[in-house]
Amino acid sequence: MNLFEKTIHRASIYKGAIIDLEVHDVELPDGQNSKRELIYHNGAVAVCAITPDDKIILVKQFRKACEKPLLEIPAGKLEKGEEREAAAKRELQEETGYIAEELELISEMYGSPGFSNEKISIYLAKDLKNGEMHLDEDEFLELEYYHMSEIQTMLDNKVLEDAKTIIALQYILLNYNHYK
Amino acid sequence: MNLFEKTIHRASIYKGAIIDLEVHDVELPDGQNSKRELIYHNGAVAVCAITPDDKIILVKQFRKACEKPLLEIPAGKLEKGEEREAAAKRELQEETGYIAEELELISEMYGSPGFSNEKISIYLAKDLKNGEMHLDEDEFLELEYYHMSEIQTMLDNKVLEDAKTIIALQYILLNYNHYK
Repeated sequence: MNLFEKTIHRASIYKGAIIDLEVHDVELPDGQNSKRELIYHNGAVAVCAITPDDKIILVKQFRKACEKPLLEIPAGKLEKGEEREAAAKRELQEETGYIAEELELISEMYGSPGFSNEKISIYLAKDLKNGEMHLDEDEFLELEYYHMSEIQTMLDNKVLEDAKTIIALQYILLNYNHYK
Repeated sequence: MNLFEKTIHRASIYKGAIIDLEVHDVELPDGQNSKRELIYHNGAVAVCAITPDDKIILVKQFRKACEKPLLEIPAGKLEKGEEREAAAKRELQEETGYIAEELELISEMYGSPGFSNEKISIYLAKDLKNGEMHLDEDEFLELEYYHMSEIQTMLDNKVLEDAKTIIALQYILLNYNHYK
């Protein structure tokens, strides 16, 4: 079956600092028309960083959309034209002070593909070196360190509510069997 | 540290069928002000359904925001006032025809917490019974069946790009060890 939806008309509703909103009139595979409300975002990167003493670095950050703080792996938006791996290294250092020389790609995923094109690249970082933190001026966060032996319990207790963080920590459990 | 961001002013930019957009002026923890662009969504449910012959049901569906079809576990939006487990059973039957009497909650997660409150509840369904499909009139999808022994390879090859689907299939691998 051809599933493609062709855009017939495209209305720009809002152009913001982080997201743009458009409403498209689309032609469905059966020739009928429908509307799609779409959020365009430049994309994001996230890093699951493992310290030399086998701890995962998580950041607690207030998420206004959810009206509560979430515990997440370090992450941030891609700057215009920025390469994803460079952005991941930059965000890791800005938020945690750690420098990672090599990253391994764990996953590239869409968190809300029903309405948003935000694609998040999740990396694994080991062999960290110490550097300096540089938070954005509207960024407030707390660093927390969890030993890899605590991950299974955190997942079982559903204390993690951020998709990229759950994917990264399940990946660690699946690929570093001695921590299960 | 108190991470809370207080809303000082709230502007409604768009109220749509699926999403609303608001821009909030917030007071940061240090007393400075900033802006937050926020997408409000009623929430969603998803079901990782295992057939009696140990296959996972995935749906291939065109995602306009991403301009391509994605392979996902069956999912859908919560209707206003609808209970999440009831919505999950309804969506599973609408999209696949299968009826699940019992669901197990795998995860409740935010896919894009940086700007959206969309919370997705992911369930596991076994002991499926046959029922009838009822697709929405603007919904076009293809069903695909993958044996549980194929999941590890799909994850390794990064063919899955939808966060809820990756979380569900990693969960299967972590909790049904004989399929690894």
